[in-house]
Amino acid sequence: MMKNYNRLKTVFARISRLQYAQRILMWDEAVMMPEGAQEARAHTVATLNRTIHRMLTNRKVKTLIDKARDEDRLSSWDVVNLNIMEKKYNKAACIPLKLTEESTRVMIRCEQAWRTLRQQNNWQDFIPYLDQTFRFVREIAERESQVTHLSPYDALLDKYAEGFGQSDIDDIFLKLKQFLPALVTQIRGKQQSDTICVARGRFGIEKQKALGLKVMQALQFDFKRGRLDVSHHPFCSGGPSDVRITTRYSEDEFISSLFGICHETGHAIYEQGLPAEWLEQPIGQIDNMVMHESQSLLVEMDVCRSKAFIEYLIPLIQDEFGTQAAFTVENLYKYVTRVKPGLIRVDADEVTYPLHIILRYELEKALMSGDLQLQDLPSAWNERMAQYFDLSTLNNDKDGVMQDVHWASGAFGYFPAYTLGRLMAAQLFDTFRQMHGQFSESVRHGQFQVLTQWLNKNVHSLAASLPVNDLLINVTGAALDPQYFLAHIQRRYLD
Amino acid sequence: MMKNYNRLKTVFARISRLQYAQRILMWDEAVMMPEGAQEARAHTVATLNRTIHRMLTNRKVKTLIDKARDEDRLSSWDVVNLNIMEKKYNKAACIPLKLTEESTRVMIRCEQAWRTLRQQNNWQDFIPYLDQTFRFVREIAERESQVTHLSPYDALLDKYAEGFGQSDIDDIFLKLKQFLPALVTQIRGKQQSDTICVARGRFGIEKQKALGLKVMQALQFDFKRGRLDVSHHPFCSGGPSDVRITTRYSEDEFISSLFGICHETGHAIYEQGLPAEWLEQPIGQIDNMVMHESQSLLVEMDVCRSKAFIEYLIPLIQDEFGTQAAFTVENLYKYVTRVKPGLIRVDADEVTYPLHIILRYELEKALMSGDLQLQDLPSAWNERMAQYFDLSTLNNDKDGVMQDVHWASGAFGYFPAYTLGRLMAAQLFDTFRQMHGQFSESVRHGQFQVLTQWLNKNVHSLAASLPVNDLLINVTGAALDPQYFLAHIQRRYLD
Repeated sequence: MMKNYNRLKTVFARISRLQYAQRILMWDEAVMMPEGAQEARAHTVATLNRTIHRMLTNRKVKTLIDKARDEDRLSSWDVVNLNIMEKKYNKAACIPLKLTEESTRVMIRCEQAWRTLRQQNNWQDFIPYLDQTFRFVREIAERESQVTHLSPYDALLDKYAEGFGQSDIDDIFLKLKQFLPALVTQIRGKQQSDTICVARGRFGIEKQKALGLKVMQALQFDFKRGRLDVSHHPFCSGGPSDVRITTRYSEDEFISSLFGICHETGHAIYEQGLPAEWLEQPIGQIDNMVMHESQSLLVEMDVCRSKAFIEYLIPLIQDEFGTQAAFTVENLYKYVTRVKPGLIRVDADEVTYPLHIILRYELEKALMSGDLQLQDLPSAWNERMAQYFDLSTLNNDKDGVMQDVHWASGAFGYFPAYTLGRLMAAQLFDTFRQMHGQFSESVRHGQFQVLTQWLNKNVHSLAASLPVNDLLINVTGAALDPQYFLAHIQRRYLD
Repeated sequence: MMKNYNRLKTVFARISRLQYAQRILMWDEAVMMPEGAQEARAHTVATLNRTIHRMLTNRKVKTLIDKARDEDRLSSWDVVNLNIMEKKYNKAACIPLKLTEESTRVMIRCEQAWRTLRQQNNWQDFIPYLDQTFRFVREIAERESQVTHLSPYDALLDKYAEGFGQSDIDDIFLKLKQFLPALVTQIRGKQQSDTICVARGRFGIEKQKALGLKVMQALQFDFKRGRLDVSHHPFCSGGPSDVRITTRYSEDEFISSLFGICHETGHAIYEQGLPAEWLEQPIGQIDNMVMHESQSLLVEMDVCRSKAFIEYLIPLIQDEFGTQAAFTVENLYKYVTRVKPGLIRVDADEVTYPLHIILRYELEKALMSGDLQLQDLPSAWNERMAQYFDLSTLNNDKDGVMQDVHWASGAFGYFPAYTLGRLMAAQLFDTFRQMHGQFSESVRHGQFQVLTQWLNKNVHSLAASLPVNDLLINVTGAALDPQYFLAHIQRRYLD
């Protein structure tokens, strides 16, 4: 009855298995791999890319899709699954195999060059690498845009933030730009008189890890299907039955590592909550980074940076590190909600964070439209740093245009997903909060099941069966709207 | 000039990259993977197998091989490389893709069943799994034997011990059977009056690891291209630029873990010493387990269980664990050269070990010839245990026929490689010893370079460019001969 559709499912299951292999190799590279294996590993990842590209663009896939359209008994999930398959096929089929291979190679080299040259604050030598990468990004975007009938920049956005185009984001970010700078000033004024006591001492890594594991457990991380390790930057990789999250530890300071774990646990419980029977199918996988970041940021920002969570945390901290002046609810809460403009995105507080994203978004757009040339990036960056943060990155490209790996690895169009995800998190949490007025009380006692069950029912278990805004409308009654985030900022920082 | 040959090299390089991915996934499964990922991981390994099989058996490969035969400028290594490619193609092409997939699935299931049922000493429930596996092994062997013109059991041996057929092994093992039992009796008599002091205390894992790393360093393990971790059974996996060795620790006893590290380091320095420019080609890879075991056993048995090595080791042990009666050269040397027949192969001393292999070899042969039926394995095992060791495994299949993973995972024909490798190690080391009379003195001082350089020149750097016996004749002047091993036993245990 569904012979062709079932054959397609087999093809896409195979692709998902190879992608799982890739993600474990990526995890291994960041967590375990000896440095001498870099070249061999890069070749292996490229070969897997090539293999996946060939499987996906096999002409039989197109024929099967066309035939499957006419088959009976397709459920509504099957139909969505088939649509995603077709979109994946179309977007891949317009990229010749050679272009996939060359661009992969160039982007791996560019990222490797970035690692070295960023440390050296050497923008000049980085330009040719980034230029090559950007040319491939543009060529791929142009090819995809012919298939998807989107503009080239929208084609990039479609990869990471499907459902949001440049005009949607322009509107949303405009609103943030209208309100955020004033909010930052107000909050800074209010926080000016706060004195914050910084935790002192050596915080042993084993104890930090024990603390992190307790929090993960409370947040319903399933250790039979995942683990926690150490890498240079925290991330979440692997697959739904094998979620690998990482953090990094410093013995001087344990809070940022702990909140890294909270963030990645949000990603992890999303993966672990995806519907078991669809894990190997496109509909069962979350490529949309707006969705994914909404789950990590809801857990990190809305839950873990709340005062109730700090109340839950203090005894756990004291269990590991004893008592000291810094370990009071009032003090630690001030510490984790401190607003302070800075150069580095990943260190930013939740209020200034969107301005970092808006800066990058505006530059990406200008690069893609041709209004900005690559070599002028540092000065354009510096200009906007002055405008949004009153800070300068002049002669400091290391902490300016070179600070993120995204562009170096070819991920143009990625950044907006962070802020869209944050807005989505605030909107989802607003609905949840109104339905569960006693949640703060549960948080104080380390009880998060009511939240994780709600997320599972309303988000995780739906996987990719709905477009982002449809899901949001179903759950919250509205499409993505920055007002929930702005109201949250008002409530947490100014009321 | 070598267009077709170079295209072949590209195909085989891709295959080698996917095999590297498989080996890292295998390492990850044993060292890192959460248990809930078993099924997903098995699917992924099977999909990689399938992908490799398809790449290898693509008809273009056959055409390219035929055309490459006529190309100019092929070096002698190129010609050998091409021959190995052709053999790999022929052996793979006779196995339909479906058979590869089904047999992989069956063997993974059988190995998983073995893990549970072995613990339960449950042979009866294991029979149907092993039967299915054995049927596939036989079918594949029969198909291969039509291509290679070897008997089915020789086709199995060809996979792990290329260069040695049943008639060669019959001769070699006959000689061992003639001499070993009497040697065991003699040695046991001589050792009867020895009193061995066993090390007491808790041996912390961090200290054991530090000790292991020092020994690896001394044995010239390159940590830029490899690492040491923990798994249930020690192994060596990964690839030449990314060698993953493992051991297991018990806080009660550190010697077996340490010698596990020595053994795996022998495998590792072999991999790390393979010629850099051929790593991705068949000629640059060691599939032959006789070769591989010769290197691990030379390091473990000939070097690390020598009295000179124990002299080197004692101060290192004392650095980590202080002094005690057990930590004298005489005592520890007695401990690591104690000969005692036992049920378990992996715990056996080097004198009784070959008898464990001969037992398995005789049963495998009988299974393949049809002289023995699967259900009669336990009684046949028990009979030979009585004959060779004067021990019984009656109602103890856990420590009898079910003790090893090999048959459960479909690796019939593998066992002889251990003993052939041991004989080869003894023969190589005999030549080395005669050329470097002062080596024991170097060992006492932890200086192993003269050995590793010699192995690199005479074995490692040659990779698979020569058949095992040709390599042995070049280096030692003779084909594989058990006399060197028997002389070593006489010298170490009876002189």
